[in-house]
Amino acid sequence: MANSYAVIMAGGSGTRFWPASRRARPKQLLPLAPGDDRSLLRATVERIRPLVPVERIYVVTSAALAEATAAELSELPRENVLAEPVGRNTAPCVGWAAATVRRRDPEGVMMVLPADHHIGDPEGYRAVLEKGLEAAGEGALVTVGIEPTRPETGYGYLEVGEALESGVHRARRFVEKPNRQRAEQFLAAGDFLWNSGMFFFRADSILGAIDAHLPGLAAALGEFDEAAARGEEATLVASRYAELPAVSIDHGVMEKADEVLVVPGSFGWSDLGSWTTAWELADKDEDDNALLAEAVAVDASGCYVSAPEGKLVALVGVQDLVVVDTPDALLVVPRERAQEVRAVVARLKAEGDERA
Amino acid sequence: MANSYAVIMAGGSGTRFWPASRRARPKQLLPLAPGDDRSLLRATVERIRPLVPVERIYVVTSAALAEATAAELSELPRENVLAEPVGRNTAPCVGWAAATVRRRDPEGVMMVLPADHHIGDPEGYRAVLEKGLEAAGEGALVTVGIEPTRPETGYGYLEVGEALESGVHRARRFVEKPNRQRAEQFLAAGDFLWNSGMFFFRADSILGAIDAHLPGLAAALGEFDEAAARGEEATLVASRYAELPAVSIDHGVMEKADEVLVVPGSFGWSDLGSWTTAWELADKDEDDNALLAEAVAVDASGCYVSAPEGKLVALVGVQDLVVVDTPDALLVVPRERAQEVRAVVARLKAEGDERA
Repeated sequence: MANSYAVIMAGGSGTRFWPASRRARPKQLLPLAPGDDRSLLRATVERIRPLVPVERIYVVTSAALAEATAAELSELPRENVLAEPVGRNTAPCVGWAAATVRRRDPEGVMMVLPADHHIGDPEGYRAVLEKGLEAAGEGALVTVGIEPTRPETGYGYLEVGEALESGVHRARRFVEKPNRQRAEQFLAAGDFLWNSGMFFFRADSILGAIDAHLPGLAAALGEFDEAAARGEEATLVASRYAELPAVSIDHGVMEKADEVLVVPGSFGWSDLGSWTTAWELADKDEDDNALLAEAVAVDASGCYVSAPEGKLVALVGVQDLVVVDTPDALLVVPRERAQEVRAVVARLKAEGDERA
Repeated sequence: MANSYAVIMAGGSGTRFWPASRRARPKQLLPLAPGDDRSLLRATVERIRPLVPVERIYVVTSAALAEATAAELSELPRENVLAEPVGRNTAPCVGWAAATVRRRDPEGVMMVLPADHHIGDPEGYRAVLEKGLEAAGEGALVTVGIEPTRPETGYGYLEVGEALESGVHRARRFVEKPNRQRAEQFLAAGDFLWNSGMFFFRADSILGAIDAHLPGLAAALGEFDEAAARGEEATLVASRYAELPAVSIDHGVMEKADEVLVVPGSFGWSDLGSWTTAWELADKDEDDNALLAEAVAVDASGCYVSAPEGKLVALVGVQDLVVVDTPDALLVVPRERAQEVRAVVARLKAEGDERA
């Protein structure tokens, strides 16, 4: 059987977790999962270690985060940290990683995993990854679909088709984030899964699909291969990366491919998308407060509180608030509007405020 | 004309301004007045300086706060800071100060002023004080009544009687804090004033009234005088003070006196009783936010924000909140419930938390 590789996409800027997250310390470098003091990135690596040795784990991140990422994952060979000079969505990221893997191992099978998800059931998760790798080993493009537990409008969906012998299904189609009514129809129908953003394929399979659907990207990756043979890849990446098409691997390749397979899974998955999700996942007191700080709550309920050690947070008579304190910035926002923190970060960035 | 003395009552513990106020740094030692970086106590002293020289300004505070109070008012003679071993409400405080003044100046006229009020119109205030001192010089017990601007249920009231030649009125009666309906009747009637807690009397007049209505206190004050003559007052105060009757000067003496005069006043008075009042007095932006910190407000209105220098506070989608941040404690409470912060302080005290 061919060797397995992991490619962890860790380039996110994570403004939705401000003020805990900052440009230089985004979501994936923070310990945001409940009851886990490891960063999301480290937890991601440790979760897959039973399946893939560190020498075959790659991380793609931004140049700005490369040092912090390498430091966080010091067990990885330094050359396994691929630093994008500029973010161009996921197709160039996946393509560059696939080219890197194929050069090393023409038959290599890779799984592509986001760095910032929370997994409640790591064993179930690994079982799904193994199934995905197995299906991909035969040449297929494979994705993971999460069994939905609510009519979520924040995710894309996959419509599931017939089951193959292996228990893996054909994906009938990709569906954009639906409105509430459609999301409820999807949930009722039972054959729609959340698109998790995890993928499995042989490196040569996805490069073939990129060749077919994103020829411009394929051409650039070919140049990267040639430069790599001369030991000049870094220079070429630095000058060419910004010209690559900024498109997602879903949109640019997977949705256009003749056939995509889907492994249905259910392993306590969450994309940890905002403080709202952090509250949902956290342990809560009898008044539904998630108090991740020393706190006094008087007639307060449904709140999420985070603060540095030694800081006392007193909530009196408030409901459903997110209160996140850090040494130089404090956020107060209703739990259901936590995503709007992006407006704050945008304003700070526009003003050149270093606390963005 | 007899000499004037000022007695500033500065023994409050000010839990309603937690977490800015602490046991060791209560309300009167904080710069809570809008646009004024002086502590309320210092502002009080400086406001009356045109009327009374520092040698004749006394401050009564608690033993725990004596050093901090003397340091805050370093221009006062150290012996003018009277330190109560234990708080026994205002009658012992006023009585002890009156005994101290009478020993020094048998004909002295004193004004008694709280240390923690805000005065919007200091000139108008001094005009009222002068009128009060003048009326008191003739032997009367005099108080100041504030012309009410709203049906406030948090203050006691004075019913005003006939005007004397001097423009000063007789006080018909003292009224306890009313309910809303009565407060509205008082406002409509037009002859009710807020009891400001400021008093004027000759030292010997108030001591005579204490003799008549609080004979136990009068006896103790007589012993203080005798001990003072022997240079042993401090020792006696330390051992006897806790036994003095814990009663207010209003309740224990003024309400029972045959005649009390009242000087009506209107000089932008506020008792700065809570964060709610602090918001009312503060400058506000177009969304009614009082931002006494570096802040980003996105769809936020009616909020009061205070934080240390260098701290950024982001409010998103919240209304009418008080957010007070300090290095070791943070408070979030709806503006109209700000008084309930006392519950937090009570809980911290019960737990022996030094942040109380």
